[in-house]
Amino acid sequence: MKEDRNCQWRVARRPRGNVVRDDFAYTEEDVPTPGSGEFLLKNYYVNLAPVMRMYMSGESVAGERALDIGDVIHGRGVAEVVESKHPDFAVGDFVHGQMGWQTYKVSAGTAQEKFRKVPDVGLRYTVALSALGMTGFSAYFGFVDCGRPKSGDVVVVSGAAGGVGTHVVQIAKAMDCRVIGIAGGPEKCALIKSLGCDATIDYKSEDLSSAIPDACPEGIDLYFDNVGGDTLSVCLENLAMHSRIVLCGSISEYMLDEPYGLKNYTRLRRTNSLMQGFFIYNHVDDFDRAEADMCRWLESGAVRPVEHVFDGFESVPDALASLYSGQNTGMALVRVRRGPHDEE
Amino acid sequence: MKEDRNCQWRVARRPRGNVVRDDFAYTEEDVPTPGSGEFLLKNYYVNLAPVMRMYMSGESVAGERALDIGDVIHGRGVAEVVESKHPDFAVGDFVHGQMGWQTYKVSAGTAQEKFRKVPDVGLRYTVALSALGMTGFSAYFGFVDCGRPKSGDVVVVSGAAGGVGTHVVQIAKAMDCRVIGIAGGPEKCALIKSLGCDATIDYKSEDLSSAIPDACPEGIDLYFDNVGGDTLSVCLENLAMHSRIVLCGSISEYMLDEPYGLKNYTRLRRTNSLMQGFFIYNHVDDFDRAEADMCRWLESGAVRPVEHVFDGFESVPDALASLYSGQNTGMALVRVRRGPHDEE
Repeated sequence: MKEDRNCQWRVARRPRGNVVRDDFAYTEEDVPTPGSGEFLLKNYYVNLAPVMRMYMSGESVAGERALDIGDVIHGRGVAEVVESKHPDFAVGDFVHGQMGWQTYKVSAGTAQEKFRKVPDVGLRYTVALSALGMTGFSAYFGFVDCGRPKSGDVVVVSGAAGGVGTHVVQIAKAMDCRVIGIAGGPEKCALIKSLGCDATIDYKSEDLSSAIPDACPEGIDLYFDNVGGDTLSVCLENLAMHSRIVLCGSISEYMLDEPYGLKNYTRLRRTNSLMQGFFIYNHVDDFDRAEADMCRWLESGAVRPVEHVFDGFESVPDALASLYSGQNTGMALVRVRRGPHDEE
Repeated sequence: MKEDRNCQWRVARRPRGNVVRDDFAYTEEDVPTPGSGEFLLKNYYVNLAPVMRMYMSGESVAGERALDIGDVIHGRGVAEVVESKHPDFAVGDFVHGQMGWQTYKVSAGTAQEKFRKVPDVGLRYTVALSALGMTGFSAYFGFVDCGRPKSGDVVVVSGAAGGVGTHVVQIAKAMDCRVIGIAGGPEKCALIKSLGCDATIDYKSEDLSSAIPDACPEGIDLYFDNVGGDTLSVCLENLAMHSRIVLCGSISEYMLDEPYGLKNYTRLRRTNSLMQGFFIYNHVDDFDRAEADMCRWLESGAVRPVEHVFDGFESVPDALASLYSGQNTGMALVRVRRGPHDEE
């Protein structure tokens, strides 16, 4: 990565199966110059999220336009304002929002890009991509608004060691729930245990169809679904009365050629249960509330972001691939360059 | 059917595909004699419902115990108390509840049998099996409690000409919704139109994947699902924001060898929609409210039961088979014998 160039990752072709290096094209351009009403951003970190493969596949999701071959790939970043002709953004401000996978960006501060100042909660600025970014907010709105947890609820979280999952586990504990986390492998299970899980299930070594009822003998009150597929199906078999399933992600399904067919959705009937989908940008009017609640939990220590940092802009394609192969733990970030919080 | 015998239909074997005559065994016994605390019921009408094939298949559903081969088949009836040694049931009372497919029954009035007096709303006593029975109550709790309709909502009802569907259409109109009914064939569509549907879709002659969006250009606010399968799948593609799908029945799926795989349940996400299951006996604590509201609608004429009466106890097996082949219209009932309301 050249400091004096705008380096970019673009869509080279549509992914088949997991993303591979040849799906991405690396390009360089001159660093752009802001016009009137614009500002120049220098990127420090970009986040990685499962939705990105859908962007690359040409789907219009998460409020972002569909990408053509050759487009810079969508991605949120934490960046510094280094030049500004915009009244609301001053040189030296740190912001987070839609940077794209590039090292610089000129922005007019449009609503679509959603640039917000990084809140000061005594944590490094990457918190703006994790707990205070779309990942933390997905956990918040999915769990709190859609899941409607009650104190004492038995909560199952799949993908519990992932970006959204690590936040859900901690929010659920902050709200006095009993939390069973599902993750792959002993290290991830140890991590989610350290975040407060009352019980953990290692889906790689345990049979979910017996492990879930064993962990939830009275049934599940709230299942927060990050993975879809068979895990969702087993949870449907183990619902308590009036339970809620929150559909956040379905990472087990994204790379299937044929969509997964959910055969037991009718299990929602006998327990008067519901399955609620949500989409983070449908909650944009309530982002201030989410930020306030998350800041409170961050300041009290009830929630601490778990970050998995890949180093260097070159690593973005491999880092993204690691998401789908279940290798990352916590919030996956790529450090584009060293910045003010990276002196250590 | 012999008047002085207790005639019964029993499970002869587990059904495969639709029920056929050989799945049922006809038997006769002496009319039973009530002991202390018991009463003898003489059956006039039995209802028919899709759940009955599940009873015959040995499933424990709808709060009823699983049937063995040789058992009298579960079914609700309207009956007269003809002998009584029970303080709460007097000779001449008309009640409805779990009679089973038989012409007499001795009952101790247990909670399990759920015998209730037939309310007087100026309609013939079969209303106790339709609007004021489990069929009407399923429409009520599914639509009102689970569907949470708002005035002006765009409501789609599948199986709209069936027992539950004809009630849902009328309740939805009574609650100021715009109602699109799906039914099979021009006669059923004419019926549901006469019940108040603003638009009808004949699934036998129209392509649902275009007819549903044509009828609901702004999307569906509430889909009341009686059929499951592809109809549910198409509705999932056409949801408005914050829509609700109520899972009542899935008659298109009951006879499949393999359960239907719902491939697009994740469509609930982008519109923050939910899919809510319910089971009528989970609402038993609210039956008085349902009865009061339904009686009000019946008395005002907003809801009128649509009954499809099969004549004679001999016809029960064929009448049940007609449900799964989509031949019945409205609430399917079998008249066991002529009674006080059958002078006409």
